[in-house]
Amino acid sequence: MEENSGECIDLRREREAATIVTEDFAVWWAGGRGQLEKRRELEQYFFSDPEFDDVASFNYLSYKERYEHVLTRGARFIAKLRQWQAKEQQSQQQEKDKDRVDIEEIYDFRRLLTGPLGAGLFPQSFPLRLHFAMFLPTLLNQGDEEQQRRWLARAWNMDGIVGTYAQTELGHGSYIRGLETRADYDVETEEFVLNTPTISAYKWWPGGLGHTANMVVVLAQLYIRGKHYGLQSFLVRIRDEQTHEPLPGIDVGDIGPKIGANGVNNGFLGFQNVRIPRNQMLMKNAQVLPDGQFKQAGQPLLLYGTMVYVRVVIVRDVTYQLLQAATIATRYSAVRRQSPIEPKAKEPQILDHLTQQAKIFPHIARGICYRLAADVLWAFYQRVMQQVETKDGAGPLAELHALSCCLKAVCTQDALDGIDVLRKSCGGHGYMSSANFDSLHGLAAAAFTYEGEHTVLLLQTARFLMRQFTAAIKRKVLPASVSYLRNASPLSWGGNLLENAARALEISASEQLRDAWQWQQKQRQAHSRTEQQANNFAGRRLAAAATLHGHAFLARNALEQLAQLKRSTNQGLFVLLQQLVELFVLDTFQRQLGAILKWNSVSGQQLQQLEQRYEELLGALRPNAVALVDGFDFHDRVLNSTLGCWDGRVYERLFEEARRNPLNQEAVNRSYHTHLKALLQSSKL
Amino acid sequence: MEENSGECIDLRREREAATIVTEDFAVWWAGGRGQLEKRRELEQYFFSDPEFDDVASFNYLSYKERYEHVLTRGARFIAKLRQWQAKEQQSQQQEKDKDRVDIEEIYDFRRLLTGPLGAGLFPQSFPLRLHFAMFLPTLLNQGDEEQQRRWLARAWNMDGIVGTYAQTELGHGSYIRGLETRADYDVETEEFVLNTPTISAYKWWPGGLGHTANMVVVLAQLYIRGKHYGLQSFLVRIRDEQTHEPLPGIDVGDIGPKIGANGVNNGFLGFQNVRIPRNQMLMKNAQVLPDGQFKQAGQPLLLYGTMVYVRVVIVRDVTYQLLQAATIATRYSAVRRQSPIEPKAKEPQILDHLTQQAKIFPHIARGICYRLAADVLWAFYQRVMQQVETKDGAGPLAELHALSCCLKAVCTQDALDGIDVLRKSCGGHGYMSSANFDSLHGLAAAAFTYEGEHTVLLLQTARFLMRQFTAAIKRKVLPASVSYLRNASPLSWGGNLLENAARALEISASEQLRDAWQWQQKQRQAHSRTEQQANNFAGRRLAAAATLHGHAFLARNALEQLAQLKRSTNQGLFVLLQQLVELFVLDTFQRQLGAILKWNSVSGQQLQQLEQRYEELLGALRPNAVALVDGFDFHDRVLNSTLGCWDGRVYERLFEEARRNPLNQEAVNRSYHTHLKALLQSSKL
Repeated sequence: MEENSGECIDLRREREAATIVTEDFAVWWAGGRGQLEKRRELEQYFFSDPEFDDVASFNYLSYKERYEHVLTRGARFIAKLRQWQAKEQQSQQQEKDKDRVDIEEIYDFRRLLTGPLGAGLFPQSFPLRLHFAMFLPTLLNQGDEEQQRRWLARAWNMDGIVGTYAQTELGHGSYIRGLETRADYDVETEEFVLNTPTISAYKWWPGGLGHTANMVVVLAQLYIRGKHYGLQSFLVRIRDEQTHEPLPGIDVGDIGPKIGANGVNNGFLGFQNVRIPRNQMLMKNAQVLPDGQFKQAGQPLLLYGTMVYVRVVIVRDVTYQLLQAATIATRYSAVRRQSPIEPKAKEPQILDHLTQQAKIFPHIARGICYRLAADVLWAFYQRVMQQVETKDGAGPLAELHALSCCLKAVCTQDALDGIDVLRKSCGGHGYMSSANFDSLHGLAAAAFTYEGEHTVLLLQTARFLMRQFTAAIKRKVLPASVSYLRNASPLSWGGNLLENAARALEISASEQLRDAWQWQQKQRQAHSRTEQQANNFAGRRLAAAATLHGHAFLARNALEQLAQLKRSTNQGLFVLLQQLVELFVLDTFQRQLGAILKWNSVSGQQLQQLEQRYEELLGALRPNAVALVDGFDFHDRVLNSTLGCWDGRVYERLFEEARRNPLNQEAVNRSYHTHLKALLQSSKL
Repeated sequence: MEENSGECIDLRREREAATIVTEDFAVWWAGGRGQLEKRRELEQYFFSDPEFDDVASFNYLSYKERYEHVLTRGARFIAKLRQWQAKEQQSQQQEKDKDRVDIEEIYDFRRLLTGPLGAGLFPQSFPLRLHFAMFLPTLLNQGDEEQQRRWLARAWNMDGIVGTYAQTELGHGSYIRGLETRADYDVETEEFVLNTPTISAYKWWPGGLGHTANMVVVLAQLYIRGKHYGLQSFLVRIRDEQTHEPLPGIDVGDIGPKIGANGVNNGFLGFQNVRIPRNQMLMKNAQVLPDGQFKQAGQPLLLYGTMVYVRVVIVRDVTYQLLQAATIATRYSAVRRQSPIEPKAKEPQILDHLTQQAKIFPHIARGICYRLAADVLWAFYQRVMQQVETKDGAGPLAELHALSCCLKAVCTQDALDGIDVLRKSCGGHGYMSSANFDSLHGLAAAAFTYEGEHTVLLLQTARFLMRQFTAAIKRKVLPASVSYLRNASPLSWGGNLLENAARALEISASEQLRDAWQWQQKQRQAHSRTEQQANNFAGRRLAAAATLHGHAFLARNALEQLAQLKRSTNQGLFVLLQQLVELFVLDTFQRQLGAILKWNSVSGQQLQQLEQRYEELLGALRPNAVALVDGFDFHDRVLNSTLGCWDGRVYERLFEEARRNPLNQEAVNRSYHTHLKALLQSSKL
């Protein structure tokens, strides 16, 4: 943090009294000194540029003005980011080959766009994001070599191309087999003819589609001579490269305001006899030959891989959103004073109220432990993808798929709930848009639903778990993340509280799975229901098992990571991380208390012990809370919050923001003269 | 519902197959045939008037335009409502005495503003509401007879007066003793001098304060000759009656965008030596004589009463918000088809998925049972207020205060969570603003925090409970709502599942209270902490006890009301209500499972039995779900939702709404030419 002066006295005292070294934590959190400094440099590069100043709050603007604001800023952002990269490459004496694009570079770029920098510049996201987040990765994963040669470099350089990925339709989301957009192959002209047969077949939701993208990857049902060949991806130009006018047969626009992410320009798209050449079906996985012959080729697993990739990344993204919210709430709670604990004493910082600590600290711990899981998941993803390339990855891919579904569902849910608790912990001022909880909530709420609806993902996880559960009965070897299913011994409460808690979570997941399985069996036997009907009747129980599995995994993973951190961190930092991991595991236990007590025998005294330790940990973290959140090193511009700024000048900032309110630029609004005045005089008539 | 044609086939089938009579439910729900018809007439009166058409979605407008829109519409609304009332009184051959105002009339008016009609016309509320909801009731409750003669009729007729109530400050909310605004009495001139000594003393939040109100009731610390006499209420003109310009010494404006309720025009207000005559301190409860003598008089309980009144009303309001959300989710889930249960079968209505039923039906049941509690609370409030007038109500007032704190906290929390679950149950489309969940969420989120922050209210409840708990130990007679605290017998699981569940909740509340009490004692004894410090350390446990008490009360009350309904409703309706109450009680049990199993002994088999019944009830409600929500009789304009309309034409409405999007009125946005085009050509440079 560059700001070294001007902090309010409460925050200064907090920082002076902390027993941890913030910078040590910051280095660890950033993944090393080099990473930390590189990020700070990049943020400085943007945030010191007056072109990227926040001249007016996004929230004052009309919906149309918001689009114009983010598009304008987005274009400047990409251009400036390119300059940065060129400079970087120059300093590393690399010659940039304009025609070479590698996937790591795309992934890095995506991280920049959705990471803290992107959040700071675009609190409600922006329309060019999907070009890098989905359009490019899809070209890479699904285009064949010739297609990559033709399109990839152009797309990477945005040479006349800005794209998005159009899968979801008005009538179909998670159940993608139900998509209705058609692509009929015309053997005569060697073209595909795209059509939107019904209103529910309109593409609906793709980011940037409304008025920004001029090309899209479209998922459509392929038909050749009237025969159906399943879903395929097609590359379609939808707007003229020069004029940007929608091309003939294209009906495109913006779907309208949403709960959040209002910078995205989500769009709708309909086709009426839109023709594209044969070589614009993406052909890495399946091909249509000129004569209309269909060939399934390549690895269908790769298609799978892109979806997994996005879910893996989401786990990381929502973790940051949760921790931004926690940082805002912590700083505000150290500045806000209210309700004396002792009568006639000075009002304390609200962070001194135990109830307030209980709202905030568990979310800090959770965010950190979810990042630990996101890192593990990312490493797992990269490992499996290498194996898939060598055609040996079907087994691990199933585990990766289930784990990514499960963690995406569980972490987005918990982050969303956490942001809400943190927002509420800031009382009335947390409700102001200028506190920025609404943007964070909006992004996490979107992540909860997109790329696989929550319950759908849990049920997919449960299907995998059920297979492992029956394999466990047969004493088969299980993948690591579910190996606990083989351990049938009941909870034995030992001296290690955390081990007890983690094991109780695992047993609960296991028993909940058994319960769902037995219920399914009962439905089939006693009521003669089919397997699928029985699955539906067991739906609640299956979803509960998947959630428990997620929590059990997260708790166990946090303990495992902690064991490794003992070797790689200094003593002060390790003690802090230990407290955080401990708080996370105990908190997860408490949140799942109903299930745990349903499936395990835990005495009142054991629960008391746990409860007591939980409250002790809150007290132990209290003196370091501000120093700890400082260590996430979120720039003030990234937090974008009147309540969360580093200097703690909360009331001044709320006030400054109110002064900027366009409504306040006139003492009397015109509506007084047009309407209110007449009302106030009408009783005299 | 007037619409009798055009409903989509799915909803028509639902309605035809229902076994309940929607109109019977509607009559019961409205409180009788007369009430139902009166409401329908009034809605017709407004919604058929083209002046009140929705010409453009609120969400497209800029913040300033939103204000102008709601102010304009609000002024028209009040004027038209007056015409309605005049017509009503004419038809009842009553002569309206312009100078007579009674409290019932104000309460009725408030109900109209915050009820379904108000919700339909102002999804994010509007700035004139506080005039009727707080300004007038305060004049009534706190003004002495002379003040009422002078101001009340004028205020009621809005004769040059539009007011609001200014209590909360930038630095202080729930802890009102900490408010900093000063009123110094100047004996020489017989005036009060109002000042805002610091930035944190600025009034912040009052609805309508920004640019609408020209008078306010201000809470300020009274000083006479430098001596402090506590908080008093003052009536202050802040804008010129003719020009509407802020008066000298007044600094007033709008605080800016919020998560929701963006029609309210919440404002800030600072005073610099603003003088008001002595007779503008509201003097029913305390007086300042011309010579500066201070006299405490009247009933301080009455001041208390206004706060209680608002909390009582909130419980009712959020119930409607929850049920609007449930109506939208139910209808959408009967129209949306997704994910076949049987392979190759037609995709079912998503309402056929058990997991979806579990997201929706418990919230319908909850909303209905919370209304039952709101009715009881309202009757209790009226009873106690009569007793207070006869100076005999201190005892019941404490119970009323605790119960209203508790239910306000618990019901707003549950409604807010419920709206969120219901929103998520609609997948991606639930995220669209046009689904209207965001407005409902915004209003419920505001209610969660205003008029007493959640945790503060729970702790106030807990203080009352703790007193009752120690009284119970001494075998004293307890007020009805806490009489269960005297029953120390453990749970005995009998044949009546609901009685088991309700009793388990009561025992859990009781035991949680005992745990908090013991923890407090331990803190004091073992750690020599003061009572207040010990309270802080027991904060989490106390808040948990208060929440459990709320749930126990709600469950018990639902069972008691059901017993009475048996006599007053027909068989078909009663069976439905029975299912709903049963679902509510079992659902509350499940939500509190952790606490229940911590404090009670319930076997696995008993839990299975309960779980099974819970799922049976979901199945039993399924065929009547649409007919049931129809019976809430929310007008389409009230629901204001593309997903929740009576005819179920979901996709058409989403699309129509998108066509109205101002961004879509041009095929190419100007930002393409100003910025995007250059970016797409830059790689060629």
